[in-house]
Amino acid sequence: MNSHADLLIKNIGLLATPTGSVPKAGAAQGQIETHENVCVAMGGGVFLGVGSEEQLRSFVDADTAVLDAGGCLATPGLVDAHTHLVFGGWRQHELGLKLHGVPYLDILKSGGGILSTVRATRAASLDELVGKGVGLLHTMLEHGTTTCEAKSGYGLSTEEEKKQLLAIRKLDDIQPVDLVATFMGAHALPEEYSDDREGYVRLLIEQMIPLVAKERLAEFCDIFCETGVFSAEESRRILTAAREHGLKTKIHADEIDAIGGAVLAGELPTHSAEHLIAADDEGLAAMARGGTIAVVLPATSFYLGKPFARVQDMMSLGIPVAVASDFNPGSSPNLSLQLPMNLACYQYKMTPEQVLTAVTLNAAAAIGRAETVGTVEPGKKADLVLWDAPDLDFIFYRYGNNQVRTVVKNGTVMIERG
Amino acid sequence: MNSHADLLIKNIGLLATPTGSVPKAGAAQGQIETHENVCVAMGGGVFLGVGSEEQLRSFVDADTAVLDAGGCLATPGLVDAHTHLVFGGWRQHELGLKLHGVPYLDILKSGGGILSTVRATRAASLDELVGKGVGLLHTMLEHGTTTCEAKSGYGLSTEEEKKQLLAIRKLDDIQPVDLVATFMGAHALPEEYSDDREGYVRLLIEQMIPLVAKERLAEFCDIFCETGVFSAEESRRILTAAREHGLKTKIHADEIDAIGGAVLAGELPTHSAEHLIAADDEGLAAMARGGTIAVVLPATSFYLGKPFARVQDMMSLGIPVAVASDFNPGSSPNLSLQLPMNLACYQYKMTPEQVLTAVTLNAAAAIGRAETVGTVEPGKKADLVLWDAPDLDFIFYRYGNNQVRTVVKNGTVMIERG
Ligand SMILES: [Zn+2]
Ligand SMILES: [Zn+2]
Repeated sequence: MNSHADLLIKNIGLLATPTGSVPKAGAAQGQIETHENVCVAMGGGVFLGVGSEEQLRSFVDADTAVLDAGGCLATPGLVDAHTHLVFGGWRQHELGLKLHGVPYLDILKSGGGILSTVRATRAASLDELVGKGVGLLHTMLEHGTTTCEAKSGYGLSTEEEKKQLLAIRKLDDIQPVDLVATFMGAHALPEEYSDDREGYVRLLIEQMIPLVAKERLAEFCDIFCETGVFSAEESRRILTAAREHGLKTKIHADEIDAIGGAVLAGELPTHSAEHLIAADDEGLAAMARGGTIAVVLPATSFYLGKPFARVQDMMSLGIPVAVASDFNPGSSPNLSLQLPMNLACYQYKMTPEQVLTAVTLNAAAAIGRAETVGTVEPGKKADLVLWDAPDLDFIFYRYGNNQVRTVVKNGTVMIERG
Repeated sequence: MNSHADLLIKNIGLLATPTGSVPKAGAAQGQIETHENVCVAMGGGVFLGVGSEEQLRSFVDADTAVLDAGGCLATPGLVDAHTHLVFGGWRQHELGLKLHGVPYLDILKSGGGILSTVRATRAASLDELVGKGVGLLHTMLEHGTTTCEAKSGYGLSTEEEKKQLLAIRKLDDIQPVDLVATFMGAHALPEEYSDDREGYVRLLIEQMIPLVAKERLAEFCDIFCETGVFSAEESRRILTAAREHGLKTKIHADEIDAIGGAVLAGELPTHSAEHLIAADDEGLAAMARGGTIAVVLPATSFYLGKPFARVQDMMSLGIPVAVASDFNPGSSPNLSLQLPMNLACYQYKMTPEQVLTAVTLNAAAAIGRAETVGTVEPGKKADLVLWDAPDLDFIFYRYGNNQVRTVVKNGTVMIERG
């Protein structure tokens, strides 16, 4: 490891971080490390050490840049473990329909809903998707997100899904937020296959998944297991095929109905399961046995006026919990993790320490990055957020405006606000 | 009126604004004016005209600055009709107590709650309050608020209430957001009077209100009429005294219990009534008869997990509705009107047009400023927001990050983001 610090951040009032490289569950979810009045040294893009200026002296020389944190709070860079980042268009015009009580299924039938995003995404060029994504990721970075998962799933054909995944790859190359790609061709049944479910399932299994794996377009395969979308049995077939091709698996499980998604997540097991608002005891027990990480999405519950997932039960059962934005144009048009963090406290009744783990280490684990990000420890990527806050409670208590002051990505200051 | 434009904003894709100088109720609440592909001319701090470049030609000369809005949405500057802006300290440490289910009354008894803010406010110097306020108002301006009400009520003694009101006056002088001061000595019973309610009521009536009126420290007098705070009968005495001294009146009415606050608001009538979560049919009917403006505070319901006020009933009854932030350190530590605007749509089921009126013209009317702000019309103060949005729906649909691009205050560009 490099021993020269490119950057020394001094006068951090409080550094709060989980530790280690495995997801934290149960009591450990809230056991973070805190350091008062501390410095952080980073070099070669990774953390070198945490300690007093004296303790870090050996890393520092005349070429080391020094940043004074002014006594504020520092945390690891945030990790957003669940986004549908790449899509064409927006869906603001459904707002009026929703206010008039038009059911989502009627919006869908009249050409709105997810299928309108599919049309807009297909109509967009790769460059258009990339250009839009750059702006969205910049906003995420401004709000403290330094690593982010991104799903396909608005293409719903081999070529169009590939276009989305190539956009994610390109975005990972050209801007600072690290991306982890998830193939989600099983996001909805495309209009062309509305009379041929089995045909689309076979297309996924026989053509799309092998291609995604072969061309290394994604690390994960995800599926929307829900009433009216894909059944638990179809999900089992698709995710099993994905695993056989070397993809890790995720599942949108039991968001609306407990149709066996969480049970399947625990049985396979999948790497993570998402939403879980309606997951029943059997499903949560299966996840606990399987070691599946729960990725819960409070902003989606907030935005749709739905119930909130049973996070206290998950934590009691020893399921590691991650909190993510679910950024997407239909049910969560929000790019910041800060409101979800606030909601996780006030609605899930998680403590600030539990939520911090949920948006750093556990989120990193949910997307296969716990070895490299999610904590402030020597050897991990030097991704750090300085907050306009004196302590950890503060960033959960305040809400409504961006509380991030400075964002460091791979050891470089990328965002400095007022 | 000036006929020279200091600033011409051209290429506004959509200008959306209510019209006139009276609060809008019933069907009129949602009747706004829209102009597509339009320019706005301003000079001498006021709007000169709205129209095509050709139509505004007479205002423009070589000295006119020109700003290209790039086809985006423009609205009037936002008006926040209800804030407790000036206070010492914060209350983030109550978060843990709340998560552990400690009732607010127990927090209060152990020295937390509003009385801890009273202690911190008393301990702060005038300059400290002003310094903190400057930062808070800058954040509000960044989020589109150009006019803001601010209440005292954390001093609870003649001298300390005066200090807060002087801080508001100073803040109005030294930074761009226009402030309207409200005296709210009747915010809580101070510890010194915990055994002498009548003594504090008499102090308010005989000493504080006359002083506030004589020294023109505030335009409005407000009171917290609630179980355990001030009764409807005490509120009637205090507000009547305030009116006799020439102050306009407001009332925090029926936030938790319908104890007659809304009824009183309609009978006196007060200029506005605030919160109204528990207001019953009798109270709303009285307000409708009295012409009282309802100032509803959805972020407080959100933050405390309380029910949302009956805004549809208010609108049906012909009560003009304003939406405000309720910014304060206990129940709404949020400075932006954008989340309240989103909540007003999704929780109150107001349309975007109704909410726009609620945070501009009706909010201005609620604080006695409808003659000068709240709409984009010739002669009104040139307070304008340009949004990162193509249409009005968009700013209610998106949430979680600041959607304001540019803020113009009194004809001067004060905020330009990315
Ligand atoms: Zn999703
Ligand atoms: Zn209030």
